[in-house]
Amino acid sequence: MEENFVPFGGIKEDVRGRLMCYKQDWSGGFRAGFRILAPTTYIFFASAIPVISFGEQLERNTDGLLTAVQTLASTALCGIIHSIIGGQPLLILGVAEPTVLMYTFMYNFAKDRPDLGPKLFLAWTGWVCVWTAILLFLMAILGACSIINRFTRLAGELFGLLIAMLFMQEAIKGLVEEFRKPDRANPRLTEFQPSWRFANGMFALVLSFGLLLTALKSRKARSWRYGCGWIRGFIADYGVPLMVIVWTALSYIPSGDIPKGIPRRLFSPNPWSPGAYQNWTVIKDMLNVPVLYIIGAFIPATMIAVLYYFDHSVASQLAQQKEFNLRKPPSFHYDLLLLGFMVMLCGLIGIPPANGVIPQSPMHTKSLATLKHQLLRNRLVAAARKCMGKNASLAQVYGSMQEAYQQMQTPLIYQEPSAQGLKELKDSTIQLASTIGNIDAPIDETIFDVEEEIDDLLPVEVKEQRLSNLLQSVMVGGCVAAMPFLRKIPTSVLWGYFAYMAIESLPGNQFWERILLLFTAPSRRYKVLEEYHATFVESVPFKTIVTFTIFQTVYLLICFGITWIPIAGVLFPLMIMFLVPVRQYLLPKFFKGPHLQDLDAAEYEEAPALSFNLDGDICSMASFADGGEILDGIITRSRGEIRHVCSPKVTSSSPTPAKDFASNSPRLSDKVYSPRISEIKGDHSPRRGGRGPFSPRTLETRPSNLGKSGQNLE
Amino acid sequence: MEENFVPFGGIKEDVRGRLMCYKQDWSGGFRAGFRILAPTTYIFFASAIPVISFGEQLERNTDGLLTAVQTLASTALCGIIHSIIGGQPLLILGVAEPTVLMYTFMYNFAKDRPDLGPKLFLAWTGWVCVWTAILLFLMAILGACSIINRFTRLAGELFGLLIAMLFMQEAIKGLVEEFRKPDRANPRLTEFQPSWRFANGMFALVLSFGLLLTALKSRKARSWRYGCGWIRGFIADYGVPLMVIVWTALSYIPSGDIPKGIPRRLFSPNPWSPGAYQNWTVIKDMLNVPVLYIIGAFIPATMIAVLYYFDHSVASQLAQQKEFNLRKPPSFHYDLLLLGFMVMLCGLIGIPPANGVIPQSPMHTKSLATLKHQLLRNRLVAAARKCMGKNASLAQVYGSMQEAYQQMQTPLIYQEPSAQGLKELKDSTIQLASTIGNIDAPIDETIFDVEEEIDDLLPVEVKEQRLSNLLQSVMVGGCVAAMPFLRKIPTSVLWGYFAYMAIESLPGNQFWERILLLFTAPSRRYKVLEEYHATFVESVPFKTIVTFTIFQTVYLLICFGITWIPIAGVLFPLMIMFLVPVRQYLLPKFFKGPHLQDLDAAEYEEAPALSFNLDGDICSMASFADGGEILDGIITRSRGEIRHVCSPKVTSSSPTPAKDFASNSPRLSDKVYSPRISEIKGDHSPRRGGRGPFSPRTLETRPSNLGKSGQNLE
Repeated sequence: MEENFVPFGGIKEDVRGRLMCYKQDWSGGFRAGFRILAPTTYIFFASAIPVISFGEQLERNTDGLLTAVQTLASTALCGIIHSIIGGQPLLILGVAEPTVLMYTFMYNFAKDRPDLGPKLFLAWTGWVCVWTAILLFLMAILGACSIINRFTRLAGELFGLLIAMLFMQEAIKGLVEEFRKPDRANPRLTEFQPSWRFANGMFALVLSFGLLLTALKSRKARSWRYGCGWIRGFIADYGVPLMVIVWTALSYIPSGDIPKGIPRRLFSPNPWSPGAYQNWTVIKDMLNVPVLYIIGAFIPATMIAVLYYFDHSVASQLAQQKEFNLRKPPSFHYDLLLLGFMVMLCGLIGIPPANGVIPQSPMHTKSLATLKHQLLRNRLVAAARKCMGKNASLAQVYGSMQEAYQQMQTPLIYQEPSAQGLKELKDSTIQLASTIGNIDAPIDETIFDVEEEIDDLLPVEVKEQRLSNLLQSVMVGGCVAAMPFLRKIPTSVLWGYFAYMAIESLPGNQFWERILLLFTAPSRRYKVLEEYHATFVESVPFKTIVTFTIFQTVYLLICFGITWIPIAGVLFPLMIMFLVPVRQYLLPKFFKGPHLQDLDAAEYEEAPALSFNLDGDICSMASFADGGEILDGIITRSRGEIRHVCSPKVTSSSPTPAKDFASNSPRLSDKVYSPRISEIKGDHSPRRGGRGPFSPRTLETRPSNLGKSGQNLE
Repeated sequence: MEENFVPFGGIKEDVRGRLMCYKQDWSGGFRAGFRILAPTTYIFFASAIPVISFGEQLERNTDGLLTAVQTLASTALCGIIHSIIGGQPLLILGVAEPTVLMYTFMYNFAKDRPDLGPKLFLAWTGWVCVWTAILLFLMAILGACSIINRFTRLAGELFGLLIAMLFMQEAIKGLVEEFRKPDRANPRLTEFQPSWRFANGMFALVLSFGLLLTALKSRKARSWRYGCGWIRGFIADYGVPLMVIVWTALSYIPSGDIPKGIPRRLFSPNPWSPGAYQNWTVIKDMLNVPVLYIIGAFIPATMIAVLYYFDHSVASQLAQQKEFNLRKPPSFHYDLLLLGFMVMLCGLIGIPPANGVIPQSPMHTKSLATLKHQLLRNRLVAAARKCMGKNASLAQVYGSMQEAYQQMQTPLIYQEPSAQGLKELKDSTIQLASTIGNIDAPIDETIFDVEEEIDDLLPVEVKEQRLSNLLQSVMVGGCVAAMPFLRKIPTSVLWGYFAYMAIESLPGNQFWERILLLFTAPSRRYKVLEEYHATFVESVPFKTIVTFTIFQTVYLLICFGITWIPIAGVLFPLMIMFLVPVRQYLLPKFFKGPHLQDLDAAEYEEAPALSFNLDGDICSMASFADGGEILDGIITRSRGEIRHVCSPKVTSSSPTPAKDFASNSPRLSDKVYSPRISEIKGDHSPRRGGRGPFSPRTLETRPSNLGKSGQNLE
């Protein structure tokens, strides 16, 4: 994306791009069939549970003026609007922690003013929202999102990890709270006797850890050894919501002498009570707010605008990382404009606004990548099986698979039909064909295990559509109606879920992977290489990685510390935005350009890195015929991102548990070229070719020769 | 072992065999240095904790006549005697659950007799022990252990699984008990109010699951990615005792309002109190027992003798399974004789006797195999590194490793110096040499990752010595003195530990693996093959496996059900002994001979299976030069045990977590021959060669050709 500050320029481009695929956004979603329910349910829970919990927090902080009903309503309303007319449908909207913090701050300011007070609080926040909306309009129109490319991986991943820390903090705080007496509760109730409080705390530990551990396990169900395929698939798809239900059910087992309040459960108002809807008419009171406060509302509005600008854009960016190989264009400017409208709408009906949320947005993309993978896989396996039934040769089988693959690719109007994915499949075919020995000999399933092979062949692709987002928003809206059921969930299950979300957001975050690398035994560092396809481990000296990671960790801890400061804490996004100049002007003074590129690629630094890599990457020259591909391979590499031409992924035929979707698509070509070329070149330097200091190549090549020697011996 | 019923024949042979390696039993132990402490501590905890818990059970059942002090004393005394003058030093002795059941039964009988009563109870059990000892002498002398070979894998593993179930049952019972009021406790204590009981139960859940999960994780520490080598090694070696300490410490965190009795802790008498030792002089009272009871003592004595004969022999047999590749001879007859003496000794000083225990005995062997592996590994890595420092070729490196290996093998007087192990290493050398390409080219660590390679090369060997057994027995004795410290351990940690022991005893139990196989998705069954080297998956039709396993499971459940019957429950070993005729006469009517051989090899059926396998196993012919090796390979195979010539283990260069020691020694030769030969023969039948219905071979061969095609392309 070029930096384009022409007024309306960015918005126009976004709208044009998204309009072109708008129809496909819907048709693609419907074509996925009932399977779309898996990511939908997954994201619905990830979205609704924190929103309910934030609603409870808000209720405590605003003396019941705003409750979970309002946060759920806002999340549902904005979600539905965004999923239908929004730009990037992968982005998930919700009422987030920063919004809660801002509203708490505003309430504390307003409640003691005689001419404002709790009565006019919502009307006043209406004005704040109006100002915020105006600021957001201005930013969107003037192309403020153009600088989104300056938010490099450094800033985005730091923010992601910060959010994970806040979620984890919420989980721990919540668990500790289970041992204490709630502030507003009646202390004379049986359940707040010391013995029952202790019992409640211990019960909470059991429930939350139970949920956390089983939820983490269930996500990996597809690679379990036991149970038949559809059960495993079902558990992997719906395991987390299922576990929430299971642990809620388990929480009802202890009965008899146990007081009703143990374990503590969600406390939320009944949305069917008559007083629950008074805030919808807040617009009537807005003119009663004194003029001074209407103008003064501009101050919190600036802060919220900055916050939303950053939060919304980064959530969108994290949902569209390079690794996901998205086909459809981004839409930062237009989405910011739409956010402005939605903020205004929420303000006028007296509910807290929703914005793009982390980690739900990247979770959404990931779950859609899994879905797409499943869909592609089923189709290709079916095609291959059908073909093999006719005693076909490997070449024919792959031909049929390619055909099926092509059919699955709905060509988008504005680009050639998914050339990249096809190219990959073709490459893999040639490679795999040669491994079987004879491309024209008939094969059967004993030689060629379709189910296993296909996982290795498929590239990462995401089912980009609007249906899952719309459905989950509607379901969040349904939560308001289902509140009586939701109140059965123990709060401790919630804390376990928070911890789960924090942990689920970690894999794929390169910053996190680098932190782990610091604690990895030197002899096992190559494993990081295997698992995460991380180039930097090979190309950057370990000392530099350490320094960079420690700098980033310290910065993260400072940001985390700031969130603890009572009011200024809201400004922590400013700290992260401050990373932009730090990255652009300060870091290059301490780190070498190419290293910085590998650790944290910035588009504005692309040019020099390109020439550097052209020098070193002979392998990519050798392996690709057309120049466009060379460029593609090199750019991917120079950006220090997940997969690239020389990735030294070790071939593994068995399904790899504990890895994300990313591991499902190693390109076979990668595996083939790398070890050999470095041998021919005799190049042992760690930067080139790939014979790094922790060379996994030797391990890789062994089986191949083993096979040969086996033949010789016979 | 031949069936030898000549009086004293078996004992003589045992003594002769063990005397020959007696000196080495000690010198080998001392030569291991401080590392011997790892298996020692491991087994000490596995031995002491159940003994303490059984002691508590006994105390409740005998109104405090016998306590944990007596069970610990007996375990220590018998352990020390056995480790010094016993035959098989791998066998661990302890007071076991059956003994507790027998003593409870006897106490219930004695306590209400006016001429016996609690006062003369111990004196009477002294007589029971005397009779038991006499029966054991007779059995030992007459060669009753000769029929130990009739206890096939079927009986041994069923018994092992039954013990695991009993341990798990104890853990669950104990946990449930934590929610209830103990029988003997004062119900007016604060900690027995409903609220505190519930709190105590929940706390117990946290502590026991905490211990179980962390203990299971810690055993796998060696394959962790994080932390430096020695920390990982330390955690793997001492993790379980460490976790007992950690969770005991954590149990002290809740303080303040919490009553002292929460969580419940071990309750044991102070061994330093004056009355604690009155039972040592029980021999004085023995003549006061009425003659009728002296004679009547013969009845329980028969039951105990049968029980001990079986329990002791099977524990010894499980500690000496084929997979462990033991070098030193067994000693069933002599050990039974010695057990007789120890039973008599215990009876005379009024403590319950100890016998060989499951699962501690096989756990002991396994931990010593790990130790031996570590020792071999360190020496060989050092030798290889030293050699590579001199810019040596691969052939030279392996030469030096072979030399180091040979030095590690203390030649036993009565056999050639560990020919098998050396042969393996040599074979592997040749294979691995050819994989690198050129055997004479100088290599360095980037090509040849010593640490990784060596794990693949080393055969399973066990550090057979007496020191670990002696030390752990002495430590158990020390427990009596350390009782005040032991009382700090929460009972819930104990229940977690029981569950841990039950789970730890499962891997390697082929019966358990077959049960798992029933629940394995068909497409993933080949994984069982990979992980457990299980021949039967390939050679026996799946339906037969299912039938056999279901039969075994039903039998197991019947045995388990019998243990629930109040008094007759003690006779459950009879049920398992009954398996001997069932296996010998009944099962062959329902299963085909070769299948039965693969599932449950019996020596008395060896001959026909041999000829059958000679027919099918061309691959073993091809791969071994000398006839002795062929025989060896075929016998191993026909016995349906872990490793054999055609084992289709998939090559894996990365360390394999979650596997036991067994996976540390795949013979490279296995990997090489199998896929190729089956291709040449074009043999797709599941029984031969190895192209089974779930063919992992194709997966295996791919990387080899990938390497080749990579070369072609360049």
